[in-house]
Parts: sequence; C-alpha cells; structure tokens
Amino acid sequence: MATDSPMQLGMIGLGRMGANLVRRLMRDGHRCVVYDMNADAVSQLAGEGATGTDSLSDFVQKLQTPRAVWLMLPAAVVDSTLEQLVDLLEAGDAVIDGGNSYYRDDITRAKSLLTKNIHYVDCGTSGGVWGLERGYSLMIGGEKEVVSRLDPIFKTIAPGEGCAEPTPSRTRTDGTAQDGYLHCGPSGAGHFVKMVHNGVEYGMMAAIAEGLSIIKHADAGKVDRTVDAETTPLRDPWAYQYSIDVGEVAEVWRRGSVVGSWLVDLTADALARSPELDDFTGRVSDSGEGRWTVLAAVDEGVPAPVITTSLFERFSSRDLGEFTDKLLSAMRSEFGGHAEKKN
Amino acid sequence: MATDSPMQLGMIGLGRMGANLVRRLMRDGHRCVVYDMNADAVSQLAGEGATGTDSLSDFVQKLQTPRAVWLMLPAAVVDSTLEQLVDLLEAGDAVIDGGNSYYRDDITRAKSLLTKNIHYVDCGTSGGVWGLERGYSLMIGGEKEVVSRLDPIFKTIAPGEGCAEPTPSRTRTDGTAQDGYLHCGPSGAGHFVKMVHNGVEYGMMAAIAEGLSIIKHADAGKVDRTVDAETTPLRDPWAYQYSIDVGEVAEVWRRGSVVGSWLVDLTADALARSPELDDFTGRVSDSGEGRWTVLAAVDEGVPAPVITTSLFERFSSRDLGEFTDKLLSAMRSEFGGHAEKKN
Amino acid sequence: MATDSPMQLGMIGLGRMGANLVRRLMRDGHRCVVYDMNADAVSQLAGEGATGTDSLSDFVQKLQTPRAVWLMLPAAVVDSTLEQLVDLLEAGDAVIDGGNSYYRDDITRAKSLLTKNIHYVDCGTSGGVWGLERGYSLMIGGEKEVVSRLDPIFKTIAPGEGCAEPTPSRTRTDGTAQDGYLHCGPSGAGHFVKMVHNGVEYGMMAAIAEGLSIIKHADAGKVDRTVDAETTPLRDPWAYQYSIDVGEVAEVWRRGSVVGSWLVDLTADALARSPELDDFTGRVSDSGEGRWTVLAAVDEGVPAPVITTSLFERFSSRDLGEFTDKLLSAMRSEFGGHAEKKN
Amino acid sequence: MATDSPMQLGMIGLGRMGANLVRRLMRDGHRCVVYDMNADAVSQLAGEGATGTDSLSDFVQKLQTPRAVWLMLPAAVVDSTLEQLVDLLEAGDAVIDGGNSYYRDDITRAKSLLTKNIHYVDCGTSGGVWGLERGYSLMIGGEKEVVSRLDPIFKTIAPGEGCAEPTPSRTRTDGTAQDGYLHCGPSGAGHFVKMVHNGVEYGMMAAIAEGLSIIKHADAGKVDRTVDAETTPLRDPWAYQYSIDVGEVAEVWRRGSVVGSWLVDLTADALARSPELDDFTGRVSDSGEGRWTVLAAVDEGVPAPVITTSLFERFSSRDLGEFTDKLLSAMRSEFGGHAEKKN
Repeated sequence: MATDSPMQLGMIGLGRMGANLVRRLMRDGHRCVVYDMNADAVSQLAGEGATGTDSLSDFVQKLQTPRAVWLMLPAAVVDSTLEQLVDLLEAGDAVIDGGNSYYRDDITRAKSLLTKNIHYVDCGTSGGVWGLERGYSLMIGGEKEVVSRLDPIFKTIAPGEGCAEPTPSRTRTDGTAQDGYLHCGPSGAGHFVKMVHNGVEYGMMAAIAEGLSIIKHADAGKVDRTVDAETTPLRDPWAYQYSIDVGEVAEVWRRGSVVGSWLVDLTADALARSPELDDFTGRVSDSGEGRWTVLAAVDEGVPAPVITTSLFERFSSRDLGEFTDKLLSAMRSEFGGHAEKKN
Repeated sequence: MATDSPMQLGMIGLGRMGANLVRRLMRDGHRCVVYDMNADAVSQLAGEGATGTDSLSDFVQKLQTPRAVWLMLPAAVVDSTLEQLVDLLEAGDAVIDGGNSYYRDDITRAKSLLTKNIHYVDCGTSGGVWGLERGYSLMIGGEKEVVSRLDPIFKTIAPGEGCAEPTPSRTRTDGTAQDGYLHCGPSGAGHFVKMVHNGVEYGMMAAIAEGLSIIKHADAGKVDRTVDAETTPLRDPWAYQYSIDVGEVAEVWRRGSVVGSWLVDLTADALARSPELDDFTGRVSDSGEGRWTVLAAVDEGVPAPVITTSLFERFSSRDLGEFTDKLLSAMRSEFGGHAEKKN
Repeated sequence: MATDSPMQLGMIGLGRMGANLVRRLMRDGHRCVVYDMNADAVSQLAGEGATGTDSLSDFVQKLQTPRAVWLMLPAAVVDSTLEQLVDLLEAGDAVIDGGNSYYRDDITRAKSLLTKNIHYVDCGTSGGVWGLERGYSLMIGGEKEVVSRLDPIFKTIAPGEGCAEPTPSRTRTDGTAQDGYLHCGPSGAGHFVKMVHNGVEYGMMAAIAEGLSIIKHADAGKVDRTVDAETTPLRDPWAYQYSIDVGEVAEVWRRGSVVGSWLVDLTADALARSPELDDFTGRVSDSGEGRWTVLAAVDEGVPAPVITTSLFERFSSRDLGEFTDKLLSAMRSEFGGHAEKKN
Repeated sequence: MATDSPMQLGMIGLGRMGANLVRRLMRDGHRCVVYDMNADAVSQLAGEGATGTDSLSDFVQKLQTPRAVWLMLPAAVVDSTLEQLVDLLEAGDAVIDGGNSYYRDDITRAKSLLTKNIHYVDCGTSGGVWGLERGYSLMIGGEKEVVSRLDPIFKTIAPGEGCAEPTPSRTRTDGTAQDGYLHCGPSGAGHFVKMVHNGVEYGMMAAIAEGLSIIKHADAGKVDRTVDAETTPLRDPWAYQYSIDVGEVAEVWRRGSVVGSWLVDLTADALARSPELDDFTGRVSDSGEGRWTVLAAVDEGVPAPVITTSLFERFSSRDLGEFTDKLLSAMRSEFGGHAEKKN
C-alpha cells in the first residue's frame, strides 16, 4: 500500500523518533535524505535505504528544491541548528519542526524565516516508541499552502483512518483528522495543540495512577498503624481488607470499560512485566509541555486544576517541595510542639 | 458463537442496562427470566424471548435452583428489594448486585445473606449505553466457588479477548481479565474496583475537558479585556490568536496519540454532533463513586489530588461553592474595597 | 483578675495541654482535682496547688456533685476511659471532652451517657503550647443548660475579649464569641467546628509554606539545569536571580500585610531560629481533623479543593504517593522509552 | 511622634491608596507634592496640607533635587506615565513604583532609567483600605543606596515595630523587617515578594472560605435530596444536623486559635454586617499577582497546588470553566445517556 504521491524528505536528527519516521516514510515509498551529528546513526539508515549525508551542506545539496526538511531534535538545539541551516536553504524551501518546541518559538521562527521566503511548519508528533508500527498523531501549524504541499508526507506518517472505528456522528468527509493528522492553524498552532495534548496526558496518567494506587492500598486495614496523638487510627479497618492484583485490574479495564485507553494498555503491560514496578523509584520527570499548558491556562483565564495538580504531583515526586514541607513541620512544631515522626 | 455452557439467569430491573444485559445473554444462548415494576418493560423483553414474570414470587418460582438472580437497580432501592427477595429464595441461591452499590453495603449484605446460606456477589458493570454491542467490563467480588459457578454468565456479558490487542508482556494464560471480567476478591472487592474505576473516569474526563477548553480559548488574545485595577491585561495577546476547531482536535487525538481513549472517541462524537455543545449548560452530576473514591483515598492515606479535584470541579459546576465564593468577595471588599465585577 | 464565679473542675490527662489548662484555671481562682496514669504528672500539679488523686475512684470522690470532669486525652483512649469513668459518676454530672475526638463519636457518646442522665460536652480546644499565656479558643457542643452551667470554666480558659480589637461591625453584645469561646450547637457541634478549624489551618499553612518556598527558589536562574530531552530549560533565567531571606520576609509580613496571622508569626520565629530549617526533614504528619474535614466536604457536596490539596501535600511529604509515582514513571517508560532521572 | 528626618515626596496617583499614603506621610511631618489627572483629588489633598500641582511638569518643578517620586497607579498605565515623567526628571532622581507592577517590568524599567542615571525602586504595598491607620507592609526592590536614602519615607509608611509582639527567637537588631518594611533585593525583588504575598493571600482566603462553607452546610442532613440514579443519597444524615452561625465562628477564631489572622478578622466583620453576604454574588476577581505567582512556581519547579487551586477557584467562580463543564456533561451523555439535572 505505497503512497500515490511519493516525495523526498530530508531528516535531521536520527534519534529513535527521527529514525522511525524515516523508516515509516520509506516503507510507504518516499525517499529520505538523512543527517545526524552521529555518523553511525546515518550509516544505519543508509543501510536501510536512505541517502546518508555527512554535513549539513551535503544534506542540503542532496535535496531537490523546493526542499522539505524535517527537524527531529531536542527543543534546546533547534535554534542553533536552524541558524546554520537557513544559510544553506533557498526561497521556497520548507522546514518542519517535528520536535517539542514551545509554540511561541514557532511564531518567532516562522516570522524570521519568512523574511527569506523560507517556510516554517510546526508539527507536534505523538506516538512515542510505538509510532513506527502504529503511526504518529500529527498536529500541524503553518501556512495553508505549504502544509498542503507536504500532505503526502503527513499522510504516510499518520496512523490512517482504519486504525479506529469511525466517529458515528461525524458527517464531514473533507479534512484529515480522521486519518490522524490535522492542520490546526497558523504558525505555532500545531505545537500549541500538541502542548495541551501532553497536558491532558499528564492528567490522564495521574488519574489512572492515583486510582490504581488506591486499589493497591485497599489492604490498609490489615496493617497495624501506631496509635498516638500524631496519627489518627483507621476507623473502619474491616473495610480495607482487600489484596487486589492491580495488574489484573489494569488488564480488565482495557476492554469495554469507560476508562479504556492506550495509557491503560501500557499500564497493564508494565504491570504484567513487573507487578511491583521495582525498576522505578518514582521520580517522575516533566519535559516542558505540561508546564507550558499551565501557563496557557493561566494566561487565558481557564481553570485547569486537574492538569495543574498532575504537574505539581510530578514536581513533588522529585522532592521539589522539600522546603515547603520543612516549613509545615516547623509551624507544627511551633504551635503544637509536634515532633516529626520518623516513619 | 453461542456459549458452550448455557445457563438460566433471572434479571430484576429492566432499565437500559438491565434490558441490554438480558439481550446480550440471550443472543449468546442463555435463558433469562425477567422482572420489573414496570410491566411494559417486562412485555418488551418477553417479546424478545425472555420469560416474563409479574411478581417477585412468580419470578423466583420460574427460576431453577440453585437460582442465579441479577439485580440491576438504583443503589437506593437495592436493600428494600433484597429484603423481599431473600424471603423467597432458598439455600444455595445466588444474588448478583450489578448496580452501583457502595462496596461497604456489599460486605454487610453478603454477611447477612450468608446466614441463610444465600450467596451474594457484587459486580461492578462498566460500559454504559454501548455495552450491548461492545460488552461490559465486569469487576466482581464474592466467594470464589460461587463466582466460578456463574462464570458462563460473566463470560458472555464481558467484551471478550478479541476486542483489544493482547498485552505484549502478559504471560499468564489462566484468569479472565483478558476477556474483560475479573474476580477481584471477597465481597465488596468488585464494587470497590468499580468505584475507583469511576474515580479514574472523573479524572480522565476532567483532563480531557480542561485541555480542550484551553485549546478552545487559544483565541484569548483576540478579545479586548477591560483594563482596570481589578483585571490584569493579557501580556502577550499575540500568543493567543488561534481559532482552533476542538472537534477536529478530538478526532485527530483518536488515532496514534498518547491520549487515545474511549473518552476521547466519545468527545469527538459529541463535538461532531454539536461543536458548541449548546444542548448542555455545564451542570455536571456526580453519582456517588467519585465521592467514595475520595473517602477511600483519605482513609488509606493515599494522595489523590487529581481525582479529588475533578470531583470538586463537578461540585463547583453546580454552584455548590457559592457561599465560599461570596466569602472571598466579601473579604476582598473588606481589605481592598474591591467591588465585584459584573462580568 | 480572679473569676467572679469560682468552680471546681476535675481534669483527667495531664499532658502539656491538660496541665496548662489546670494552671490557667487555678490562676483565675478555680479549684482543680487532677488525675493521670503518670503519678509524676499528678505530683507536679499537686505541688502547684491542685488536688492530686491516685485512681479514678479517688478522683471522682474528691469532686463535688454535680461533678464537672474534663478529659484531655488522645482520641484513641477516650472511649475506654469513659467506660470506666461512667460507672463511677452520678446523674447530673458532666463530662467535657476537650481533646480531638471525631464529632460523630461525640453524638454517640452523648446519647449513651444521657441514658444515665450524665451530660457530655464536646469542646474543641485550639491554642497549642501557647495557650497557658494566650488562652485557648474553645468551640463547644452540647446541651445548652449544661454548657451554661460550665460557663465560668470556659470563660477562664478562653483568651478574653481584650486580646484582639473589637470587630467594627459587630453589634450584638450577648454571646461569648468575642471572649474566645462559643457554644456552637448540640453534641458534636464543638468538635465539628474545631475539625474544620484544623482543616482551615492545613490550608493556611500550605499557602504560607508554598509562598515562602517560591520566594526561596527565586534564585532558580542562577543554577545551571541540565539540558536534555527530559528537562525543559528555564526560558528566562534573568528573571530568577534573587537571593531573598525568607525569614525576613516572614517578619515583614507580620505587620500591616493582608497575610498577617499567628501562623506567619510562628513561621518568622522558626526561621529566626534556623534559617534553613535543618532540624526538619519535611515529613509532615496529619492528625485526623484534616481528613475528617475532607470527608465532611464530600458528604455535604461542598467543593474544598484547597483544604483537600493541603491534606494530600502532607500525605505526599511522607512518600505515601510512591506507588502512584512509580506507575507514572512506568507509563512514561512504556510510551516514550523515558528512563527515570536520578536527580 | 513625628519623624526625625522629614523629607519631601512627590505622589502621582491619588486614588484611595495614593491619597492615604500622602496623609500618613504628612501626619508624620513629611512634605508632599501631589498630582492626579483628576483635579478634584488634587484639591482635596491640597486642602489637607499637600502641595497641589496641575501638570506633570508643574509637579516635577515643585520637587527638590534629588527628587523622590512615588507612583501609585494601575499597573496598566505605569509605563505610559513613566515615559512622560522621565523626560522631565534629572540624573539622581528616584522613582518609586508603589503599585502592583509585574516584577519583570521593574527589571526592564530600572535598566532603562539607569541609562539616564535615574533610579527606579519597586515597592509592593500591602494594607488596603486600612493602611492609613494600620500602616502599610512594604516589600522593596532596587539599589541599596537609593533605598537607604528613602528610608525615612518607608519608615513612616510602614506600621512600625509596636504593632505586633516581637518575634521571640529573633536576635538580629539591624534591619527593618520588624518595623514592617524590607529591602528584599535588587530591582523587581520587592514586587516579586509582594506578588507571592498575594498568592499566599489567595490561598489563605480560600482555606478560610472553604472551611466556613463546610460549617455553613453542616445542616446538609436536614435537606431532602432527590434519590435517583444521578444523585447519591447522604449516607449519614444524622451527622449533618447542625445550624451553626458562621459569623460567630469567625469571631471566636479571632482569639487564641491557630487560624487567627487579619483575614479572619475581616471575615468576622463582613459576616457581622451581613450574615448571608447577600450583597455579593460570588464572582471573585483576580488582579494579576495570583497568576504571576503560579507562573513563577511553574518556572522554578516548585509545587504550589494550594495557591494554584485557589486561583482556579476564582476563575471558576466567574464561570470561566463553562466549556469544560459542558464537555463533561457531553461525555456523560455519550457513555451513559445521562441527562443534565436542572438543580
């Protein structure tokens, strides 16, 4: 099932995401020119059929005009790469930032590149390590004509209509959302939607994790708690006598339940591999989008307590609230003479 | 694909859920005896092949011993129905409460019924109006032997293994979770897990709704805000100039994205039907399980800020925080002479 | 300034709170009979003028009828003490529970004692280690006549009108609230109000602690953060270059600011003693009232996200969210191949 | 008790805050030159002893060099006023922004003014309508020498040491925090601390308001709730039978309790005037600092769920979560056929 409209795409950044995008594109009949600081990554993909290059100028020369260049880089190095790249490109070329840039940077960059008649497209890309097989959900921002020109690329990368049942009430037949990619609006709109997507992801993850943790601790009544002035005893220990297998719960929620979701699928998988999750310590990173989502909610005046709380849970998991907690203990000590308990 | 082990089941309560359970069971070859206060509901299902009855005693007489009776009733009338029913049942019979009872009531009821050697099984049932076709996710509590005896019933009602991809890391082949039903533990365990399921549902729904609302208001910079001492102006109106179609966003998130879920599917459907959701005023009910989940988290000492916040969002949507808000305005008036703004 | 109406009171429980209540009462001219399991505690107060006793029956015998007995005990031992005590008391006697009982227990106990015509008064007591000098804020529940009879006791224990400016708009001259004690309603009402008082205390403490922590970390731009795909760099390090002395901030907030409060006073004191709070690890206990406040909010359907969040912050400070956090890390690993960072 | 070091100060902006600052300064022996767009405001203060002016240039001319000019203006008009003013000032003059500017603007402005050797001081001012009598808490940022030169002004405006008990553990005798004003650091540090102060204020207010609302609704068991599938009945109506006077509760909390605070004082006052707060609808404004506090917490990576939640409560009180809530109702309708309830 090769694409009807094969195109050439240049990919800069051959980490897991970039490399798999190239593979998915080539499988579908597109031609890819690839570059990475790491020559081994280039060789690997050249061995799989891509055109390898050994410098940015080599890379640019091997692309036909108008060029289509996809950047799949950590947000922190996009600007420096763009700076070098832009000097090599020509009017009419297009650069797609497929990483996790802050949407405000997109607006700035697009404006700057447009002075040289180079087009900038921001493309939020969701799908993680599974995207090669499942396809990637794409949220795109930029000029309409440019996005249209690149449509065969987006269509190939996206999961495609068949991977989910049609939405029953959906009547519109134009558009691409049902194929798993969407032109959301002008520059920045793609990363804006992707940013919020990740905010939603934080909130959904937290809801699932909190729930399974409540189920895990349904045995609270079996444990003797110390009874002292600092600890309130459990009033109804008889009501917390369950030892429930949370991995099996995640598995059963995968089918037919209201919370059925890819995140529950993944949770079931993780628990099937390691029921106690011993490989993890519980220090949960956050990589920017959650923070930016909260900033946007505050700017817009939209209440977002659930998403925000899920962000702060992650901060707390990394002990970033330590001084806050010390202050609380200090106040308790001041007014009540309460000493901290050791456990 | 009829069941290998046809059974007889009595169903009390022929609302949407109860009636569809009966239909799904009969399709698979089970025989159903049905009762409801509403004779029309009984006639309807009798016309579809069920055995209709016109009183509880008629209902009980038409069931073979050991009887299997499924209650699909509002939580508030389960106890009164049980009271009448128990006098008619015999030792060895089993009652399944498939509604949304509080798990603590299950513990009490099971203990009470066991004095007459009648078995009580609690079964949390998720699937809503779609369960007839999709199957229902079942979370079951009660005695092991009794739950085993009823297995063919649960197997038919549940969605079945085929409706989702296998969990890659799952190695165990015993058990039923992969078929969409699970014996979670002794009495109450089923409704406990279902209760938390709904708590998770609240949190996931809130995350999705908050996120889409942030996207909806990405046009905040287009609107002139009054500038006065009471209102802070938006510092970066240029960053909020997007008019994004949230229905299309929900549609694109359905495929390949990390937030892909049945709730996003349903959201896409609702927005396809009515992009502004004009049929709704935004008064969001809560029906008990969310509250109980919070009580359990507090009792267990497990932090659940996301789920809890989503519950309180619902309370606020119904103006239950009105006095709180008046107090806040009153304080502002006291210390700052701030008058309330009208909009 | 001795009381006009000296009374006799029996005190059971001579911990810090109980002993100081006795001292405050004796200073004002009341006579106290005291009992504690710990004979040293009894001797100590006997040396200060109280009538010591060496058993509950000795204690009861030394009290004039109708007796007034104050219990100042950990919540967990109130019921067992009451059981012994009640057999020794007579119709007309009154028992005051001045500890931190759950208000629902008050309702049960009052009803039970009333069958013997013994009166039960619940009295929430706030003031901590400072109450001997400052007086204690008292929130009282029980029968009106009994509370009235005990008024001289409450009046002495309470801080008295002079300790705060009059409330300007207050016109009522009856009542006792302006003296620092209040009959809130029938049995349980006192502990109900005290319970919520502590919930408010949790929320206020958290607000202060979070704020000072934000000020403490106003130097975030001075610190180099690792830049990688897991960590978002601080966009505006120039805006976080402050090294602010949080102890001085707490001190300045004590005078004239909107957040002026006893809790800020205490925070300033703690920081004056130890600017980095090195004596504390940040494991913050919760002793029951905060939990019960959340349960009440949920039962009543009143949104209380701030108080609840402050409770969950305490849970998290004691690592009770560990499994939740592990689940989050596990999900991130599943969909994104993200490894946990060590710091 | 006039100041030892009388100074001259120019005040621009004679709203309530500006006018009262002038009055407080003049009472203490300082001389004030005043300007406002509103000539009546100028006349009023001229009548009380200030030197009135009718234009910015008139205002500047009447000030001795090096001038000290205090701006007490809405944040939104500070920049335009500064622009005109700066052209009239001379090297060595100082401008104090006493309003609620965003601290980042302070950094920019200070840098810009310094190119003309004009000094900029940011001064967060708390105290509201009560400051004339109580004094204002001042949080100051800027160059050390300039702040020192202005010390007599700050000392007069601040509440002074006597208005609160000394902090027992405080040993340092230098500094000014104990007088109610503090030089917090370089430009912006004053408004940074004031910004967080207001964030703390939001959180404390919310804690108090939520708590009193829970007490207000302690009668929840007296009300009949509809019992249907959408509403969970109150399990223990007997536990919610209290009609508690929340105004009296606020009054009693003013003395000796842990939550004693100016905000509780004000709440007691508001409730004494209007027990049901009928003058308010509950639309709670937020004026910028709360939002900026949240942005700072997110940037710094400091968990601040309580302060943030209190901000979002305010958003919700103004129905800014309406689309979120409609989405929730729409989802419930989709999966469960749940119709919205009218009340």
